[in-house]
Amino acid sequence: MREVAILGVGQTKFGELWDRSFREIGIEAGFEALQESSLTSKDLSALYIGNMAAGTYIDQEHIAPLVLDYSGLSGHHLPAVRVEAGGASGALALAQAYLAIASGLYEFVVVGGAEKMTDVSEERGIAITSSAVDHEWETVFGATLPALWAIVARRHMHEHGTTREDFARISVMDHENGSKNPLAHYRNKITLDAVLDSPPVAEPLNMLDCAPSSDGAAALVLGPLDRARKFTDTPIKISASQVASDTMALMHRRDITTMDSTVLAAKRAFERARLNRSEIQVAEVHDPYSISGLIALEDLGWYPKGKAGKALAEGEISIGGKLAVNTSGGLKAQGQPFGAVGIAQVVEIVRQLRGEAGDRQVSGAVAGLAHNMGGTGATSVVHILERVN
Amino acid sequence: MREVAILGVGQTKFGELWDRSFREIGIEAGFEALQESSLTSKDLSALYIGNMAAGTYIDQEHIAPLVLDYSGLSGHHLPAVRVEAGGASGALALAQAYLAIASGLYEFVVVGGAEKMTDVSEERGIAITSSAVDHEWETVFGATLPALWAIVARRHMHEHGTTREDFARISVMDHENGSKNPLAHYRNKITLDAVLDSPPVAEPLNMLDCAPSSDGAAALVLGPLDRARKFTDTPIKISASQVASDTMALMHRRDITTMDSTVLAAKRAFERARLNRSEIQVAEVHDPYSISGLIALEDLGWYPKGKAGKALAEGEISIGGKLAVNTSGGLKAQGQPFGAVGIAQVVEIVRQLRGEAGDRQVSGAVAGLAHNMGGTGATSVVHILERVN
Repeated sequence: MREVAILGVGQTKFGELWDRSFREIGIEAGFEALQESSLTSKDLSALYIGNMAAGTYIDQEHIAPLVLDYSGLSGHHLPAVRVEAGGASGALALAQAYLAIASGLYEFVVVGGAEKMTDVSEERGIAITSSAVDHEWETVFGATLPALWAIVARRHMHEHGTTREDFARISVMDHENGSKNPLAHYRNKITLDAVLDSPPVAEPLNMLDCAPSSDGAAALVLGPLDRARKFTDTPIKISASQVASDTMALMHRRDITTMDSTVLAAKRAFERARLNRSEIQVAEVHDPYSISGLIALEDLGWYPKGKAGKALAEGEISIGGKLAVNTSGGLKAQGQPFGAVGIAQVVEIVRQLRGEAGDRQVSGAVAGLAHNMGGTGATSVVHILERVN
Repeated sequence: MREVAILGVGQTKFGELWDRSFREIGIEAGFEALQESSLTSKDLSALYIGNMAAGTYIDQEHIAPLVLDYSGLSGHHLPAVRVEAGGASGALALAQAYLAIASGLYEFVVVGGAEKMTDVSEERGIAITSSAVDHEWETVFGATLPALWAIVARRHMHEHGTTREDFARISVMDHENGSKNPLAHYRNKITLDAVLDSPPVAEPLNMLDCAPSSDGAAALVLGPLDRARKFTDTPIKISASQVASDTMALMHRRDITTMDSTVLAAKRAFERARLNRSEIQVAEVHDPYSISGLIALEDLGWYPKGKAGKALAEGEISIGGKLAVNTSGGLKAQGQPFGAVGIAQVVEIVRQLRGEAGDRQVSGAVAGLAHNMGGTGATSVVHILERVN
C-alpha cells in the first residue's frame, strides 16, 4: 500500500447557519479544499462524504452525488460514496478514501463531511442525534445520548475517583481554544464556575458540559504522497487510519468507563505509524460531552485511568503544554455538525502541522492525532498525521 | 490489485416481514453467508452494510456496528461501515468491500444489505423512498419517484417509438421468474392485460409497473480468490466492480431516456473484465419501475435504444433465451428492500453460476452481471461475476 497525503483543506464556519442550505455548505468546504490543492475537477477520481442523518434532518438521502452535482462536478460521472457511523461518519469516510488511494485504485479524492442540524425542533433534534445509539434497547427507554454519557460519568467518578471539576475543565479548555478560532460556533471564554452552575441536562452533566448541535461542513483533498509536491509545498502525510467498533448498547460493554473501540483503534494506529504517544504534539479528541473528552485522553493512551483530570488542571494539555488538545475548540466550542466533526478535526491538525493555525498555533508541531467517535463508542476512528520535511 | 471471490451468500425472504425486526433479518442473512463459506467470526476483517434509510424507517442510524453486535461479532471490534446511495446502497457497499480486499488490506469481509420498509404508513413510505431524488428541486414539487419515472417513460415512447406494452412486459417477465423463487415477495404470475388494466400510479405507469416496498436482507462473504478454494468448491470471481454517478435531478441530464451512469459503469466494467456483452448469460437489472428495466437493457449495451421491447416480446431475455434477465424475479416480483437489492442481485447471480438456482436455473451460465441503481440514476453500480473452473 502506498503513502497518502492531504493536499488541501476547507471548512465553513460552524454554527446556526439558517440562511444556508446543506448543499451550499458542502460545496463551500469542497471548493476551498480543491482551490488550496490547485487540483482541477478533471484530476479527481472519486468523492466520499460522511453524513449522519440528512434523511431525517433535511429529507434528503443519496447526498454524495447531490454534492458532486451542485459542485458542478457531475460531468465526470465520478464514483460518489456516502458513509455513515453516527458522529464518526466523517472520519469513517476519510478511512475509506484513504484506503482507495493507498490501494492504488484512485489518485486524487475529495472527502467531505457535512451536517445541517439546526432546521429541526429541539425535541426532534434530540431524537435524531440519539438514533446513533441503540434505539430498541436504549433510546425507547429514554436513554438519550446525554443520559447515557451521564451514566458513564457517574461510573467514572465511582471507579476512578474522578471529580465533577475534572471533566468540567474540558469545556473550559475548549472555549479558551475556540475563542481563537474564527470558524468556531462559540467564541466566548467560560469559567469553571460557569460550567458547574449551568442548568443540569442529565446529572452530573450540565448544559456547558454538552456540545451544541451545529450546521457545518469540512473537506479534504487527498492524493498519493509521491505526487503531492506538485500540488502543495506542505503535504501532510496520513501515517495511520484505523477503525474499530464495539457493542451498540452500553449495557453490553465489559467496562463503560473505557471505550474499547478507541483503545484498539489507537493501538493499531500508533503501531502502524511507528510513533510513541510522546511524539504527538497536537490532538483533537471527540468530546460531545466533557466526560467523553476526559475518557478519550485516557483511552488514547496518554494518561492512566483517573489521571487525565489532574493533567488538565495543571495545563499539560493546553496550548503551550506538553500535548495541545482540541486547539480548534473541540466539539464543545468549535461545534458539532455530526457528519463534519471527523473531517474538521483533521482540518485543524493539518493547519497546525502546516503552521497556519494563527493565534492558536502550537509551536514545533510535527505530528498530530484526530479521534472521532460515534454514539457512545460503537465506532471509533483514529488518524495520525505527520508533517513531511 | 488482487482478485476477489465470493465464498458464501445468504438471503432472507423478501416481503412484509411484520413479525421480524431490522436486526433480525440482518443477522439471518449474514449468518447464512458465513455458514456457507465455512469461515468463523475470527477470520473476518470487516463488515460493510448497504442501507438507505434506517434513520427514518426505524429511527436507527449507525447500523453497521449494530448488526455486527447482534450477530455476536462485537468482541473482535472489527471496522463496520455503512454505505448509502438510495437504491444503490447495497452494490455500493459491495464495491467498497471489494476494493478493501483487492488492495490487500483485508482478507475476509462480510458485506450485507438490509432495509425494513413496511413498518411505516404508505404516505410516509413514499416520502422516504423519494428522498433518493433531489428533494429541493423535485420532491417538494410533487415529483416523487414514480412521477419522475413516468416522465422518463413518456419521453422514451416519444423519442424511440417504445409502446406501453414494451415496458409492461418487464413486469410479466419478473413475475414469471419470481414464481420460481421461494424468497420472492410475490410468487404469482401476471398477464400483460393485468399490467395494462391495473390502476394508474403516474401515467403511463400502472400499479403493476411498480416494484413494491419490501423488508429483506442479503449478505455475501468475500475473500481473496487465491485463498478461496480452502473455503468453497465453487468460488465466484468478481471480475469487475464499477460505480458511476450523474446529476441528482432529471432536468439537468443531457437525455432523460439514457442513464449515463449506467452506460459508463457498464463500459468500465466490461473493459475491466475483458468480456463482451455476448459472453454474459445471466443478468439482474435494476427495475423499480418497468420502464427502468427496459432502459437498463439498452444502457448496459445489449440493445440499441428502442429495441429492447421487441427482444423481450420474442423471449430473448427469458430463461432459455439468449440472455436470462432477472431470474430472481427482479425488483417487481422478488421485491425491493432498498438497501438489500444490490446484494440480492449478486446472490442470485452467484446461485446461477454455481448451478444452484433450482427451477429457474439457466443452463451453462458461466458469467453474469448485476446492475444496481439509486434514485433516477444519480448512482449506478455494475458488477460482473464469473465462475472459476
